[in-house]
Amino acid sequence: MSNIHAYAAQEKGGPFETYEYDPGELQSLDVEIEVESCGICHSDLSMLDNEWQLTQYPFVGGHEVIGRIAAMGEHVPHLEVGDRVGLGWTSRSCMHCDQCMSGDHNLCPTAEGTITHQHGGFADRVRCHWGWATKVPDGVDAVSAGPLLCGGLTVFNPLLQYNLSPTSKVGIVGIGGLGHMAIQFCDAWGCEVTAISRSRSKEDEARQLGADHFLATGEDGALESVKGHFDLILNTTDAELPWDAYIAALAPHGKLHTVGAAPKIEATVFPMIMGQKSLSSSPTGSIAATRTMFDFVARHDIRPMTEVYPMSEINEAFDKLRNGSPRYRLVLTRDN
Amino acid sequence: MSNIHAYAAQEKGGPFETYEYDPGELQSLDVEIEVESCGICHSDLSMLDNEWQLTQYPFVGGHEVIGRIAAMGEHVPHLEVGDRVGLGWTSRSCMHCDQCMSGDHNLCPTAEGTITHQHGGFADRVRCHWGWATKVPDGVDAVSAGPLLCGGLTVFNPLLQYNLSPTSKVGIVGIGGLGHMAIQFCDAWGCEVTAISRSRSKEDEARQLGADHFLATGEDGALESVKGHFDLILNTTDAELPWDAYIAALAPHGKLHTVGAAPKIEATVFPMIMGQKSLSSSPTGSIAATRTMFDFVARHDIRPMTEVYPMSEINEAFDKLRNGSPRYRLVLTRDN
Repeated sequence: MSNIHAYAAQEKGGPFETYEYDPGELQSLDVEIEVESCGICHSDLSMLDNEWQLTQYPFVGGHEVIGRIAAMGEHVPHLEVGDRVGLGWTSRSCMHCDQCMSGDHNLCPTAEGTITHQHGGFADRVRCHWGWATKVPDGVDAVSAGPLLCGGLTVFNPLLQYNLSPTSKVGIVGIGGLGHMAIQFCDAWGCEVTAISRSRSKEDEARQLGADHFLATGEDGALESVKGHFDLILNTTDAELPWDAYIAALAPHGKLHTVGAAPKIEATVFPMIMGQKSLSSSPTGSIAATRTMFDFVARHDIRPMTEVYPMSEINEAFDKLRNGSPRYRLVLTRDN
Repeated sequence: MSNIHAYAAQEKGGPFETYEYDPGELQSLDVEIEVESCGICHSDLSMLDNEWQLTQYPFVGGHEVIGRIAAMGEHVPHLEVGDRVGLGWTSRSCMHCDQCMSGDHNLCPTAEGTITHQHGGFADRVRCHWGWATKVPDGVDAVSAGPLLCGGLTVFNPLLQYNLSPTSKVGIVGIGGLGHMAIQFCDAWGCEVTAISRSRSKEDEARQLGADHFLATGEDGALESVKGHFDLILNTTDAELPWDAYIAALAPHGKLHTVGAAPKIEATVFPMIMGQKSLSSSPTGSIAATRTMFDFVARHDIRPMTEVYPMSEINEAFDKLRNGSPRYRLVLTRDN
C-alpha cells in the first residue's frame, strides 16, 4: 500500500500541515476509503486543542467522512470496492460483546474512535472496520452526507431511543451544527417543533428549517411562558442550562435529553418526582441507527446547511469554526 | 351524616388527640369508607412536622386506608356499599384533563391529596372521589394491603413506567418501608435483584425477601465492584447519593430512578452521554397502576412486613417511626 497523504497538527492548537504516513498492511476485516469529503465537527476542534487529554500528535482529525471503498481486507462481507460509504466518530468495535450483539455497537466498551485511536479523514484515505463503513444512499450528496455521520446521528439517535411519537411537542435548544439538523429531523418526524435560542437572530432560518415556534430565552419570562409544554427537550449545547427552569418546561412524563457535553447537571428532585420527569444523555448512535437515519434523510430530503472549503484550506476552515459562526456545518472536499 | 371520629394533631409535631368533625353532606361522586386499617407512611410524619409547609392543623393523617364502602353519592358508578377498597395518597382528581384522560390521574395538575386537602384515614371514616377508591382483592388482608397503597405503589410504578424486562438487573437502594416491597416486586417480576444498604445488618432479611445479591456500600470498593452492572437502580431513600458513583454502576442504557425525595441531583454529564444513561423520578402511581399492583400482589402472594398498633396507640406508633426502626411498615387498626 502507498502512503496516506493527510493534514496533521504537530502540536496542540495546530496549525494543520501536510503529513504523510504508512498505514501498514490492510487488516482482513478493514476497508480503506478514498475520501471524497469530510465534515468538520466541533469535537475535531476539541481534539485539536487536547481539551479531553486524549489527543496524540501528530493529530489527523476528521470523522464525518464520505468516500468510496478503495480496498478491502479478505474477510470483509457485504461491501464492494467502489461502494460509496460514510465513516463517523467510531471506526471499530469488538463486534462480539453484549452491546455489539444487541445492536448497540456505539456503546461497546472497547470501541475505537476514528480520530482518538487512529488517523482520521482529513486525508486522501482513511481506514475502518467494515461494520463502521455505512453505505450512503445515491440521492444524498457527499457534502450533505458528511455532517450527518456525527452531528446528525447524535440528534437522530434520541428520536429512535425514545421511539418518539409524532404527536410530541419537542424543544430544540441551540440552533447550530446539531440543532439545525434536529429541527429538520423532528419536523419530518411529525412533531411540533420549538427552536430555542438566546436571541431571535436565527428565528427566520429556524422557521425555514421547520420550526413551528421560536423561543428566545434572553427575553423576559420566555421559559415561564412554556411551563409544562414539552414532551422532549433536546439540548444540543454544551452550556450548563438553568436545569430547573427547563424541567419546569416539561409536560408530565417529559424528558430533558442532553447531547451537548455540558459538564454537569444540577436539578431539584421534587418537581421531577411530581411530574415523572427524566434527565438523560446519549452519544452519537449505532451502526443500525446510522442506516435508519440515511434512509429517513433520503426519503425526507433532509440536508444540513454547509459551508465548503477545499481540504487544502483546512486552516481557514478551522479558523472559521474557532472564531466565526459557520451556518452551520463546515465540510472539506478532496483536493484535486 | 354523623360526625367522623378521628385522631388529629393540633400543632406541628403532635401529639395526636381524639378529634371529631362534621364531614358535611356526601358529594354525589364521593364514597365514604369505614376504616378497617390505615398504614403510616413516612410522609405522614413529614406532614405532621409541616416539613413541606403544606400542613393545616388540626391535621388528620393517614393515606394508606383499607375499609368498606359505608355510603355512596348518587352518581357513583361501579362500586357498591360493602365493597372492600383502598385509598392512597390522592383522593381526588379532575377526571377530565389530558393527564386524567390518559390514565395518568396521579399527574393531574389539580389532584387533591388525602392528607393535604382533607382529613385522612386516622379515623373511623374517610371520604374520596369514587375513582380513587380501589377494590382490594379478597386474598389480600387489610393490614398487608394498606402499605401497598402509597409505599408499595411508589416502587411498583417505575416497573410499569419502564415496562421493565424480567431479564433486567435491578439494584434497590435502601431496605426500608419502600425498599423491602421493591425487593419483593422485582423478585416476582423475574429480575436479578441486588439489595443495597450501608451495612449488612439487613442482609438476611433482604435475601429472604428475594434479593439475589447484597451490596453494603459502607464497605471499601463496594460500588466499584458493580461498575456497569445495573439496568435499573431504584433509589428509595431521600439521601443525596454519590450520584456519579451510582451512574457508573449502571450498564449502558441504565436508569437511575429516584422515588425518595432527595433534595437535589448533581451529576457529571459525560459518563451519561457515553453510556446513554438517565436520571428520573416518579410519584406514587395512577388508579390503573394501583389495580395492576393489587392483581400482581395477589397472584404472587406479596406482603409488606408490618408492625401493627391499635389506632388508640397512634402516638406510640409515631414515636416508633420517629425514633425507632420499624421493620418495615407500621399499620394502625380500627379501635373496637
